[in-house]
Amino acid sequence: MNFMSESLKKHFEWNGKIEVISRVPLNTCDDLSLAYTPGVAQPCLAIQNDVKKSFILTRRSNIVAIVTDGTAVLGLGDIGAEAAMPVMEGKAVLFKEFGGVDAIPLCINSRDVDEIVNTVRLLSGSFGGINLEDISAPRCFEIERKLKKCCNIPIFHDDQHGTAIVVLAAVINALRLTKRKKEDVSIVINGAGSAGIASARLLYDAGLKNIILCDREGAIYKEQDGLNSEKKRIAEITNTKQRKGKLADIMKNTDIFIGLSAPGCVTREMVESMNDNPIVFPMANPVPEIMPDIAKSAGAAIIGTGRSDFPNQINNVLAFPGVFRGALDSRAPDINEKMKIAAANAIAKHIKDDELTPDYIIPNPLDKTVAEAVAKAVANQTVNFRC
Amino acid sequence: MNFMSESLKKHFEWNGKIEVISRVPLNTCDDLSLAYTPGVAQPCLAIQNDVKKSFILTRRSNIVAIVTDGTAVLGLGDIGAEAAMPVMEGKAVLFKEFGGVDAIPLCINSRDVDEIVNTVRLLSGSFGGINLEDISAPRCFEIERKLKKCCNIPIFHDDQHGTAIVVLAAVINALRLTKRKKEDVSIVINGAGSAGIASARLLYDAGLKNIILCDREGAIYKEQDGLNSEKKRIAEITNTKQRKGKLADIMKNTDIFIGLSAPGCVTREMVESMNDNPIVFPMANPVPEIMPDIAKSAGAAIIGTGRSDFPNQINNVLAFPGVFRGALDSRAPDINEKMKIAAANAIAKHIKDDELTPDYIIPNPLDKTVAEAVAKAVANQTVNFRC
Repeated sequence: MNFMSESLKKHFEWNGKIEVISRVPLNTCDDLSLAYTPGVAQPCLAIQNDVKKSFILTRRSNIVAIVTDGTAVLGLGDIGAEAAMPVMEGKAVLFKEFGGVDAIPLCINSRDVDEIVNTVRLLSGSFGGINLEDISAPRCFEIERKLKKCCNIPIFHDDQHGTAIVVLAAVINALRLTKRKKEDVSIVINGAGSAGIASARLLYDAGLKNIILCDREGAIYKEQDGLNSEKKRIAEITNTKQRKGKLADIMKNTDIFIGLSAPGCVTREMVESMNDNPIVFPMANPVPEIMPDIAKSAGAAIIGTGRSDFPNQINNVLAFPGVFRGALDSRAPDINEKMKIAAANAIAKHIKDDELTPDYIIPNPLDKTVAEAVAKAVANQTVNFRC
Repeated sequence: MNFMSESLKKHFEWNGKIEVISRVPLNTCDDLSLAYTPGVAQPCLAIQNDVKKSFILTRRSNIVAIVTDGTAVLGLGDIGAEAAMPVMEGKAVLFKEFGGVDAIPLCINSRDVDEIVNTVRLLSGSFGGINLEDISAPRCFEIERKLKKCCNIPIFHDDQHGTAIVVLAAVINALRLTKRKKEDVSIVINGAGSAGIASARLLYDAGLKNIILCDREGAIYKEQDGLNSEKKRIAEITNTKQRKGKLADIMKNTDIFIGLSAPGCVTREMVESMNDNPIVFPMANPVPEIMPDIAKSAGAAIIGTGRSDFPNQINNVLAFPGVFRGALDSRAPDINEKMKIAAANAIAKHIKDDELTPDYIIPNPLDKTVAEAVAKAVANQTVNFRC
């Protein structure tokens, strides 16, 4: 199937991929008086008296806003708020189908960090959580950081943390299968955008301390001139030996390659230069950093990509529906590192020992049972805030 | 039934009155590739190339945001953004059930006019229209006016225009039944908030030029000191004889009383002082300006209230679902006076000549066929903007 032309055709037919429905009857005068005036005054007053009741008396405990400014949509770049909507509606569909979460796409027509933060802050009382999406780096980091400070509901930039969680899950299972310990392995991440930086941080927080992050110039190191603030931050905990060099140099004698970068930037020789039986995750979409067959013939023991037509699709739909489901169910005010690591472990554990093979280290993205396991794991990490 | 306590109980059970569902299948890899990546890139690019396509390739042509700041919720006043949500969810239910419109409640946690305007403006690309709701006067006028200037989708403050449309419809049918001409009747409107001022303006624009608007002090006149900007504006076209005096004085020898004010402020004697067979619409909720039985015994020929337990319930659910349905279907960039008057005429005409009685001048609010008639009438008034 030519997904591009077929998808356009389908979108013309669908006329929107989501819709809002009523959960209450509305056939009689009594129905109207209960769901609307005059009866509705009572739940209003109950919430005015105790704002936490908004999580019970309205849909707030199940509603997440998907917020974008349209600046980093898929591989398309800055295409604007309206043009980002088909992706956000698709995301809303995934939220519902996998996590039972009601998601509302909001595309903000601004590129200004503070204006975006203020807009979301002013609306945060209408939602149980905020999923930031497709916002360009490094603005996405600042927006998320500022929102976490001023909102008391979970703020989660999925391009960062959703990806990082699934990458961590894949790494956990790759180590489990090849019987290596996380303390012993060295990791190279290529791509220092939102996903690369967040993956480095989560892997580090999960105990994988030997990481070098590369951007187009090569290894990022602490003393490097001209790093943006986010690269500076991550350079504090990665590349502890302050190595310099191009990706090809840095990959030599490492155990794990994680690509969140550009098509075709890894060669057979680069994989061959890694330690024996390397783990190689070239996740650039739609064309990976190196094609799986080449990586395999170069000695890669385990390969994962972003694509559904190869084994081990590392897709963040395995994470975000369950993460938000768990955060909403436990009424968590935030999604923290512990919750993310718990999510990754839950995804990894979803594959039993006797199921684990080099071609099956990560559950199928269409497996709708994963989200439930993730939700439970995430909820278990939180203080219970239910009122 | 005690609607207050029963409604609270129901709201605890419902856990939200709306939800977001998917309109597309999501069971196979192909489904995922069509609704989401990689296929979704094509509709994104099509919208980037021509933003009007957002009305076809996303749900935009059917989605309206219900926006409030929670400052004038029901009769409860300024209860805050979160506490307003039960009303907004109820409104969303009405939008869907009566107009087939997907409505998304957004409660903005700000009291600042420009901040509210900016928030809505930045989000306007995600919606096909904006329904402003329960925003206190006179801020609501300024917010609507500013939004109309900066957004190219319909902006409609329902407390103003929804009410005005249904009031006009009720007046049209009351005149039709009593065989009076709109040029000949005199009208007193008590209550110079958003509904009172908007009703005065729409009645005026529909050809009922003899109107005096009263607030708590009495008749509003052009030369009056201390009027807010909105009362000043409406004083330009009402009370052409610059009459002064309390409501009781002003009501003498008039034909129509429209109450959008406070319980019990109209006495039997005041109705008796009106012209013969007056039309009396005491719409204060839940307790009218004068109870219908008293108004009747004082000589009122036709009585309408805001309540469902009396005949002739003047309820704006008769207007807004159809108005937005028509505006969305015709892709109107605005909802103008012509469209509102067409809506009022459609509501009035929905009652046939042989059905019209003093107790049936306005359709039942639960009659779901009204919205369709209103939608057609509204759409007929618009230039067709479909792309």
